[in-house]
Amino acid sequence: STQGIELTAKLMLDPGDAVIIEEPTFVGALQTFAGYEARFVPVPMDAEGMRIDALERTLAGDDRIKIIYTIPTFQNPTGVSMPLARREALLKLARAQSIMVVEDDPYGDLRYDGEPVPPLRALDPAVVHLGTFSKTIAPALRVGWMVVPPEFVQPLIAAREAADIHNERLTMRTVYHTAVDFLDGHVAAARTLYRGRRDALLAGLAANMPPGVHWSRPEGGFFVWVTLPEGSSTNALMPRAADQGVIFFPGSWFYPNQDVHHALRLSFSTQTEEAIAEGTKRLGAAIRAYLSEETAATVEPSTMRQGAAIPAG
Amino acid sequence: STQGIELTAKLMLDPGDAVIIEEPTFVGALQTFAGYEARFVPVPMDAEGMRIDALERTLAGDDRIKIIYTIPTFQNPTGVSMPLARREALLKLARAQSIMVVEDDPYGDLRYDGEPVPPLRALDPAVVHLGTFSKTIAPALRVGWMVVPPEFVQPLIAAREAADIHNERLTMRTVYHTAVDFLDGHVAAARTLYRGRRDALLAGLAANMPPGVHWSRPEGGFFVWVTLPEGSSTNALMPRAADQGVIFFPGSWFYPNQDVHHALRLSFSTQTEEAIAEGTKRLGAAIRAYLSEETAATVEPSTMRQGAAIPAG
Repeated sequence: STQGIELTAKLMLDPGDAVIIEEPTFVGALQTFAGYEARFVPVPMDAEGMRIDALERTLAGDDRIKIIYTIPTFQNPTGVSMPLARREALLKLARAQSIMVVEDDPYGDLRYDGEPVPPLRALDPAVVHLGTFSKTIAPALRVGWMVVPPEFVQPLIAAREAADIHNERLTMRTVYHTAVDFLDGHVAAARTLYRGRRDALLAGLAANMPPGVHWSRPEGGFFVWVTLPEGSSTNALMPRAADQGVIFFPGSWFYPNQDVHHALRLSFSTQTEEAIAEGTKRLGAAIRAYLSEETAATVEPSTMRQGAAIPAG
Repeated sequence: STQGIELTAKLMLDPGDAVIIEEPTFVGALQTFAGYEARFVPVPMDAEGMRIDALERTLAGDDRIKIIYTIPTFQNPTGVSMPLARREALLKLARAQSIMVVEDDPYGDLRYDGEPVPPLRALDPAVVHLGTFSKTIAPALRVGWMVVPPEFVQPLIAAREAADIHNERLTMRTVYHTAVDFLDGHVAAARTLYRGRRDALLAGLAANMPPGVHWSRPEGGFFVWVTLPEGSSTNALMPRAADQGVIFFPGSWFYPNQDVHHALRLSFSTQTEEAIAEGTKRLGAAIRAYLSEETAATVEPSTMRQGAAIPAG
């Protein structure tokens, strides 16, 4: 997906143009768009993804918006998915103002329960859809795909050729032979594996988190978003948890201005269920210790942003 | 090298900034720099590469020059190389005005005769040097390297990460294992093979070209640059040669404004000596036929640029 974001940004953005993003969103996308001197216009999320009322207000107030960048399915970092009705409402708003929708969909194949929802691209052929084999075969391959409107194909090929000519053929062959008669079964097995890890994480959080801590309940993908009480700093919590052998990404990393501090992202894809159970115990203890110290110290909740609280999905 | 040009352009250029190029030069570089809305400032070449007197005048007249892009060794498309004295003069001029020199060196390992000349990077640690395995292992691998000043490393890594994260590990391993105990011998064998093809091409040209046609005599690389009499159009010649089974790149493709028409590039890397001998016969016949028709028709040599004539090296 990363090169798809890069090429789209290169073709669409002049310095000062605006990109609508979900808040919070994928750090790598922020980094790539920033390389084209884009201005970020964040839209807050709730348990159903990007909030359409906020999107509508945002679109009305800025005439340099060129792209709506969204991860509608098992979002990174929150794990939240956008239901069908909201997808349709987003596309209607984008069409009305001829704004390009870029749908980043690295996790769509990794659904563990609930009903599948069509990707935005299936609802509107003007959508630029980005897919990847990084989550289903191997991230080291750097192979993904784009589904784009016909008039966007030639400019994209030209931009790609100027960037690095083309993919490695060795890798393309590897992906091809992995896909034929193997990939579907592999993904089904991966779903079973990751479902167990997600369930272990949700069970571990329920058993070990102190009151005032909330988290998302993703139907797929790799991530759970955890919110601590307002005024907490997960940047401050991180080294304490790391001392206990538990690593997370502080939520501030997923905000363009890094100004929301009381959330964190957990990833369950690479750890065993046993390690996840143990990890939630240690994380719970670290959060308890941190919160009890914080309560004793002075915090200024009024200076904190409200954006991090994604209610449970 | 292509991604190296891309990343350097991304970090160094704002729209309207100028890039000094050799005229003619590598089409792909023109395309990549153009993607960053660079302005091209061409410097003419002679049998020793970029002309330093012209470079000096050009530098004096433009304060938005950010990069000097050069292929000093077995240049694409002319096959010409820059001797040591001229390399030193170029670097002195660049240093005096703090302009970045980008040395594209895809062919440096493929010298067939003559004395090796140090790359620009060996003479000045401020040079950005681009190398590739495309000419020595396989173009389908898309693996190259950059040698850059230390302060340029971190920005390049960040730009690379935003573009496509990193190289495929599978491919990197392939390159690594090809390099260990194999590549040096392979390159030596390739030199012998390509030397024979170059010699076949030079012999074929000497035997078959009509008067008024001149060509470069490269000591390495893949290309010979052929100039026809002023007023000729190798764009018009191309379909006639193609009818005879001979393909070349018209010289105009290597000029940013495509306004020089009486030269063409021959590549000898992929054809056998026998095919090259036959090809020069057919090309000679096609050129003779074209020139005799042209002499009968009206040409306007005064409208043609003089830049294509690279005297024999």
